[in-house]
Amino acid sequence: MTDISELDTPCVLVDLDRVEANLQRAQAFADESGLKLRPHIKTHKLPRFAQRAINFGAVGITVQKLGEAEVMADAGITDMLLTFNIIGAAKLKRLRALSDRVTIRVVADSAECVAGLSEAFADSANPLGVLVECDTGMGRCGVQSPEAALELAKIIIAAPGLEFFGLMTYPAAGKYHEAAAWLAAAKSLFDAEGIAVPIITTGGTPDIWHADEAGVATEYRPGTYIYMDRSQVAAGSASYDDCALTVLATVVSHPTTGRAIIDAGSKALTSDLLGLVGHGYIPAYPDAKVVGLSEEHGTLDVSACAEGGPKIGEQIVIIPNHCCPVTNLFDHVHLVRDGQLVETVAVAARGRVD
Amino acid sequence: MTDISELDTPCVLVDLDRVEANLQRAQAFADESGLKLRPHIKTHKLPRFAQRAINFGAVGITVQKLGEAEVMADAGITDMLLTFNIIGAAKLKRLRALSDRVTIRVVADSAECVAGLSEAFADSANPLGVLVECDTGMGRCGVQSPEAALELAKIIIAAPGLEFFGLMTYPAAGKYHEAAAWLAAAKSLFDAEGIAVPIITTGGTPDIWHADEAGVATEYRPGTYIYMDRSQVAAGSASYDDCALTVLATVVSHPTTGRAIIDAGSKALTSDLLGLVGHGYIPAYPDAKVVGLSEEHGTLDVSACAEGGPKIGEQIVIIPNHCCPVTNLFDHVHLVRDGQLVETVAVAARGRVD
Repeated sequence: MTDISELDTPCVLVDLDRVEANLQRAQAFADESGLKLRPHIKTHKLPRFAQRAINFGAVGITVQKLGEAEVMADAGITDMLLTFNIIGAAKLKRLRALSDRVTIRVVADSAECVAGLSEAFADSANPLGVLVECDTGMGRCGVQSPEAALELAKIIIAAPGLEFFGLMTYPAAGKYHEAAAWLAAAKSLFDAEGIAVPIITTGGTPDIWHADEAGVATEYRPGTYIYMDRSQVAAGSASYDDCALTVLATVVSHPTTGRAIIDAGSKALTSDLLGLVGHGYIPAYPDAKVVGLSEEHGTLDVSACAEGGPKIGEQIVIIPNHCCPVTNLFDHVHLVRDGQLVETVAVAARGRVD
Repeated sequence: MTDISELDTPCVLVDLDRVEANLQRAQAFADESGLKLRPHIKTHKLPRFAQRAINFGAVGITVQKLGEAEVMADAGITDMLLTFNIIGAAKLKRLRALSDRVTIRVVADSAECVAGLSEAFADSANPLGVLVECDTGMGRCGVQSPEAALELAKIIIAAPGLEFFGLMTYPAAGKYHEAAAWLAAAKSLFDAEGIAVPIITTGGTPDIWHADEAGVATEYRPGTYIYMDRSQVAAGSASYDDCALTVLATVVSHPTTGRAIIDAGSKALTSDLLGLVGHGYIPAYPDAKVVGLSEEHGTLDVSACAEGGPKIGEQIVIIPNHCCPVTNLFDHVHLVRDGQLVETVAVAARGRVD
């Protein structure tokens, strides 16, 4: 047995008991809410956790990039939704190859995107399922109105090689009521024209415990929920005791009474602030603040800690602001239970941004 | 020949002509200033560019983490300065093993750090060269006064297995005069006691063109200078035409007249702001602003662009705010010249934060 104190730092620890609890809690809530769960794997990028969520009842997975989808397909995952507009010959060729191996559906928010998909799938024996991406308040991708969703759906329906499969949105955090109203209005338009909408999918961990208010949605796509992080605690969707992913770091310098330096900087914790002040939470030293990050150093203000806080050589555990980009920085993560290393695994889809 | 327009996105392009020009210009300026150059490889993490700088006249390289040092040693680099306090049994064992293969020197800013180094090297045939890290205004690691530098140097001199090798600082950007004064004061103290100071090393790309004002320093350690980036342009140390690293992205959505979405988000460009507004500069569309990043999407405000700016499917080149963490996100980078792919290379020390 290896105690986590023997691990070289900085490194990522993933608490398996917390992962299991987070997966089960979300699945149970989705079941109670009458929603299918389609977890987003961008957070962990590990085939084993994708499969674990499916074992608990998820209908499949969500991926954000084709590269992630390819890794998951290679690992045996057979049902996925790619929530990204696939544009350009190189990617369309990869998508077509992937669709020969697994069930994969995609989204589109423009006629240009639909045209590319149709051209790539026109001669396919199996039509490609395409959902219309809807901008329900996030201000990112998506058609801008329920009417525009209907219009694009008709283009998909008319396009050779494609099958209209529903509506997809990623709502702005806290705007689940607006998203629900938007989707309901769209559904009414489709109903009025007698167009079936097989899937209406929404998501986001910040509002996961409001999924029961998602209205006409049939499916929910949380990602961060498997690990949780400081931003989710701030959003009220988790407690620190739910946080399964932590960064283990070592104090390497204590140049002044009030300042300690750790060996984890922005290349371990990322610079993501997500509206927060500081770069993480240290459960063992709640009065310590991670006030600054350079690439390989983290600067702690420990002036409020009793007895100067952690000492040189001491290992500390940090809950990062945002767990998703952290796991994307590390080739491996350590799976742990009760403070002991269970297994070190490669982050299979790390860096698959293409 | 592969034109860069055929590359799948997002990806990193490195312009070889600009790299060569940046390396040569800095070496020439160091030579004129009577300084040795010891480039920091944390920016590129590529052995070939470490070697290229040495070919141009650099005395060796700087590394920030032991993992980077191991990769560079494996690739044949034989002279390096590790500008990080090495703490703990696991890392000390690795450092000792590395010192049997290459010339590697380290820094220390505490008696605790020196004690660990001495214990690891007490029975070594070759003493470990240790420089005292000095906090000349950065507020990160380092002893807090010239007097403390002298005191720690004496501890190093007295420690079995160690050899005092000089002073090291990473000055705060723009505070090169303060750093020079600090180091000069320290040097006077050492001179008064007849203690030789073999190396006085300072660095930083933001003030690289003030290296000639570094006073008693003997060596300069720039990192970002090889690629340059938007933050360096803002600091006045580079022009956009010097920027060798860019991210190639594709417009995947144009949901409103003023908004375009690209396939590069924080997992390609990082969230590093470095005091800037926005997340990069787009030379082909100087009026476009990268106003937001989520993990895999970048949001552009193109309302000021003529004719709506870039179209869906169009590839655009982005100069990131901070090149160093960008290269650390990608397993490979594309080396290009005159818009053509020359070679795709693995980022050998990517993710070596330990």
